[in-house]
Amino acid sequence: MKAFSATFYLFLLKNLNKTSMPSISNKAVKMPESPIRKLVPFAEKAGAKGLNVYHLNIGQPDIETPEVALNAIKNMDEKVIEYSHSAGFQSYRDNLAKYYQKSGVNVNSEDIIITTGGSEALTFGFMSTCDTGDEVIIPEPFYANYNGFAVAAGLNVVPVTASIENGFALPPISEIEKKITSKTKAIVICNPGNPTGYLYAKEELEQLRDIVLKHDLFLFADEVYREFCYDGAVPHSVMNLEGIDNNVIMIDSVSKRYSMCGARIGCIVSKNKEVMASAMKFAQARLSPPTIDQIASEAALKTPQSYFDDVVAEYVERRNIMVEGLNNIPGVFCPKPSGAFYCVAKFPVDDADNFCQWLLEEFDYEGATVMMAPASGFYSTKGEGKQEARIAYVLNQDALKAAVKCLEEALKVYPGRI
Amino acid sequence: MKAFSATFYLFLLKNLNKTSMPSISNKAVKMPESPIRKLVPFAEKAGAKGLNVYHLNIGQPDIETPEVALNAIKNMDEKVIEYSHSAGFQSYRDNLAKYYQKSGVNVNSEDIIITTGGSEALTFGFMSTCDTGDEVIIPEPFYANYNGFAVAAGLNVVPVTASIENGFALPPISEIEKKITSKTKAIVICNPGNPTGYLYAKEELEQLRDIVLKHDLFLFADEVYREFCYDGAVPHSVMNLEGIDNNVIMIDSVSKRYSMCGARIGCIVSKNKEVMASAMKFAQARLSPPTIDQIASEAALKTPQSYFDDVVAEYVERRNIMVEGLNNIPGVFCPKPSGAFYCVAKFPVDDADNFCQWLLEEFDYEGATVMMAPASGFYSTKGEGKQEARIAYVLNQDALKAAVKCLEEALKVYPGRI
Repeated sequence: MKAFSATFYLFLLKNLNKTSMPSISNKAVKMPESPIRKLVPFAEKAGAKGLNVYHLNIGQPDIETPEVALNAIKNMDEKVIEYSHSAGFQSYRDNLAKYYQKSGVNVNSEDIIITTGGSEALTFGFMSTCDTGDEVIIPEPFYANYNGFAVAAGLNVVPVTASIENGFALPPISEIEKKITSKTKAIVICNPGNPTGYLYAKEELEQLRDIVLKHDLFLFADEVYREFCYDGAVPHSVMNLEGIDNNVIMIDSVSKRYSMCGARIGCIVSKNKEVMASAMKFAQARLSPPTIDQIASEAALKTPQSYFDDVVAEYVERRNIMVEGLNNIPGVFCPKPSGAFYCVAKFPVDDADNFCQWLLEEFDYEGATVMMAPASGFYSTKGEGKQEARIAYVLNQDALKAAVKCLEEALKVYPGRI
Repeated sequence: MKAFSATFYLFLLKNLNKTSMPSISNKAVKMPESPIRKLVPFAEKAGAKGLNVYHLNIGQPDIETPEVALNAIKNMDEKVIEYSHSAGFQSYRDNLAKYYQKSGVNVNSEDIIITTGGSEALTFGFMSTCDTGDEVIIPEPFYANYNGFAVAAGLNVVPVTASIENGFALPPISEIEKKITSKTKAIVICNPGNPTGYLYAKEELEQLRDIVLKHDLFLFADEVYREFCYDGAVPHSVMNLEGIDNNVIMIDSVSKRYSMCGARIGCIVSKNKEVMASAMKFAQARLSPPTIDQIASEAALKTPQSYFDDVVAEYVERRNIMVEGLNNIPGVFCPKPSGAFYCVAKFPVDDADNFCQWLLEEFDYEGATVMMAPASGFYSTKGEGKQEARIAYVLNQDALKAAVKCLEEALKVYPGRI
């Protein structure tokens, strides 16, 4: 037992009416929990029972990090791991600009600030453009953590629902325009999309360009999946949209591109000098992005094209196995995505949250089961996506085949099947 | 010249009255620039003229990172740089708890969330406890970036001025109590202090304990300089204060302890379960702290005591050279700090901002000059610290001797000398 001093007992005695503790913030109460993490305890229990859980719930690829990046870390000869410049190493920014230019994306090094992951890039973007109570419009379903960054920055997310029947194409621009108020500061897209895998056509981006220009809004585009486009589809960057240089803010990251999610290196990119000067002040306050990880990320720019060719070919196979497999299960519908490594499928179930939990808690097929992310966490509108789940096809092809089989068998016996 | 499409010209024609661009946030306008970075262009110009600039302006130590940490990076055999758990690797949290226990600090692994530097730890702490318009009381001068984290979280800093004549001891508790309003949520201290080097006595911490308990406040303590205490002085952690487990939030970082500022690994520590659950939601949104850097930080825990003994002995020498040197210059006063590797000195000048700029722009002694951080950036009260500057004694002893000589000569000729 801990011993308290006599003076402290005296103090307690004097303050007996003060036993309450300070309260956390409203912001903390409002802050959403990760929709995926809610299922983690059930997955852990399934694992403890000896079940083989196919993790389709998280975008952590099994693809190896390029050797050039790993070797750069191993061969590092720094004796002191020093801060970098708050905007990131100049050499990295220069070489990153060259990567964009080679990819046909209109970016120079002065348009780039290196951040701690895409997460920090979006936070800097939100903080630089939005005040408490301001609104950002986001087509839903959208990457669930956008909610977290919005709450942290004090702004409100206004969703516009995309439909699974249309493969999650951009909702009609008139629907988006209806949501614009005097508080609207930005439209946010993810292209290619997490969780939908949808790749916006040039015409859709031009519709967005017209509307942000008409209403003086910012257009944020999270383009971290740019290298993952399939069947000859070409990604169009918002940086190339004509005449809206001052409106556009691009978010990027090395996490998925080089399968180095743990490096936490991303960037915020814009030609709007005011936005970049603001982002720089937030960047200065946190001193610098991680040094070793920048060294690895700069080296990763030398990854040969063959690496991406192999990775894309692998993901096409995986997508085909998953999407065709799902669509072959009676009652399941899954649009075929052109990018990223996710798909959202609609299941013939009462409630996908229950279904996903039941898969982990009650079901197994030959000693295995599947973990998916219920889509409810990716919608901001209550009740939307109730029958849908997001699947990350980041496992090897045999595992994906087995996972599809699991789902097929599960739907035969799930009590909430409709 | 960039070619625009015909339809875009048509669009522009229709929207000629829409040439304004979207505005940045008020938060971005309010966000302070780094007080040190303002002088950077002048330092660059001095360097370009061929001058040797002694950088006493930034806490980037020249001390080598422990070999165990560097080797852990070089010997890493991961093939994929994956995300870690959002709270950090469990093994790192376990071993970090052991480090605290060994240091006599009352912390268990469940009280720890690993963060991206101390910066993110304080941001999570502010976001978890304070809403827009809430107030935190901070003895000034204080680490300038606290202002940035406060603006980002939407809260207001209320300073209580510590005096250089008292060596920057805790201001009278009655002065602190006067500042408490219904909006006050926390008191923030840095111990040992950046920029003052002051180490709070146990009695001062107990005064703070009594007042936070009386008024139901949080007590944040930034203890990143814990290992840097001199002349036998012992650091007292807020984690050991009796009876205020639910009020205390400790901030820590590997940056200075192991001279690995670029690793960006820190932690937020508290026994308040609500605070930790909230911080965890912010941690989940940004996915994870950097993986490689955690591996290095965990390995750094095996740094032998002899490393710290050597480092502390070196800093004592450096401090003595700097502080005695400064006090030997006519008109200069510098209290002798017991911790960290900073001191704040008062100069016989009109304005330390001007003096610091003049040192870089107009002065040299035998081809060298000195860069210091004007203390105005560390005070929140306008006009305070006007004659003071912060000095980081992070250079080798010869460089420090030469820097003192420079300052002595500079003060003989500075036009604004008073």
